[in-house]
Amino acid sequence: MLGDVDHPGYVDQQAKLLGRLRRIEGQVRGLARMVEQETYCIDVLTQLSAITKALQGVGLILLDEHLRHCVAGAAASGDQEHTDELVHEATTAVGRLLRS
Amino acid sequence: MLGDVDHPGYVDQQAKLLGRLRRIEGQVRGLARMVEQETYCIDVLTQLSAITKALQGVGLILLDEHLRHCVAGAAASGDQEHTDELVHEATTAVGRLLRS
Amino acid sequence: MLGDVDHPGYVDQQAKLLGRLRRIEGQVRGLARMVEQETYCIDVLTQLSAITKALQGVGLILLDEHLRHCVAGAAASGDQEHTDELVHEATTAVGRLLRS
Amino acid sequence: MLGDVDHPGYVDQQAKLLGRLRRIEGQVRGLARMVEQETYCIDVLTQLSAITKALQGVGLILLDEHLRHCVAGAAASGDQEHTDELVHEATTAVGRLLRS
Repeated sequence: MLGDVDHPGYVDQQAKLLGRLRRIEGQVRGLARMVEQETYCIDVLTQLSAITKALQGVGLILLDEHLRHCVAGAAASGDQEHTDELVHEATTAVGRLLRS
Repeated sequence: MLGDVDHPGYVDQQAKLLGRLRRIEGQVRGLARMVEQETYCIDVLTQLSAITKALQGVGLILLDEHLRHCVAGAAASGDQEHTDELVHEATTAVGRLLRS
Repeated sequence: MLGDVDHPGYVDQQAKLLGRLRRIEGQVRGLARMVEQETYCIDVLTQLSAITKALQGVGLILLDEHLRHCVAGAAASGDQEHTDELVHEATTAVGRLLRS
Repeated sequence: MLGDVDHPGYVDQQAKLLGRLRRIEGQVRGLARMVEQETYCIDVLTQLSAITKALQGVGLILLDEHLRHCVAGAAASGDQEHTDELVHEATTAVGRLLRS
């Protein structure tokens, strides 16, 4: 149920994450095609926003699994110091997402 | 150490949070003064970005304390269902921050 | 119609902007009150996201007016170099908004 | 110098944009590889934030070129109504970027 030393928290969602990332990769390729075909600036920007949103969606799944398994796992094991480290790391990662 | 039923996770940081929010309130008032005095658009926008960043900083403190106390507290108590609910709620809150 | 040397681009929207900023100032004060009253972390975060969104809304009005008056005004006057400078400045401001 | 009916504003930057998008496509593929190899959640999130930032960078180039050519071009031609439409469209696109 909780994360272990061998697998990251998102291991149960791996197939879903890979599917999403493959779709995003295709969307980036489609964006390049739009630029090649000289599509109107604003239409390219709209599609770019959709891709950014899709990437953030993947980030939220990763964060959710990380909290659910790694952070909660450390807390359940009673290791307060490790829990604090993981929480700090997770909040820092959210800060990077927010500033990107 | 962990959150309890009577206090939110951020209770230890309450004074710090209130200090930051008071400063942000003053910055918003300063922004209104800039608009009143017809300050150059871009300078107003730069200051507005600084305030948004300061607000996000408060959000990250709240999130950090929430994970550290409420989420980790639920996990330490062994209540998996409650932990899952809290994690879901936290991730949803991060999603709102990202989209704001 | 177009911006002039004496007034920033947003001068026509000044009253609207001031109204919005006064409301945002009140919302920040309300946020401090929530923290004082030890409101649940996630509810504070939700309200914080709403304020960030409101600030970004003000930023979009400022940007819109800046483009409509200052940038378009420079372009209409035929001053290509000044137009380029203003565009560069506006894009940089958008970059700051995105990273905040 | 200014945009015309046949080409979008970013036509001068087309090679640069395509180079960046090709690199981003490779980065997304690398992200999928990290997930496949069960890389630690936070490291995946850090790389995801870098890709989002790179995409926003492409968005800023597109916006810059759009303002520099399409919007300024419409203003220089004296067509106020068309300029207003283009500005509104550009601001709306920035709004979508901010919320993504």
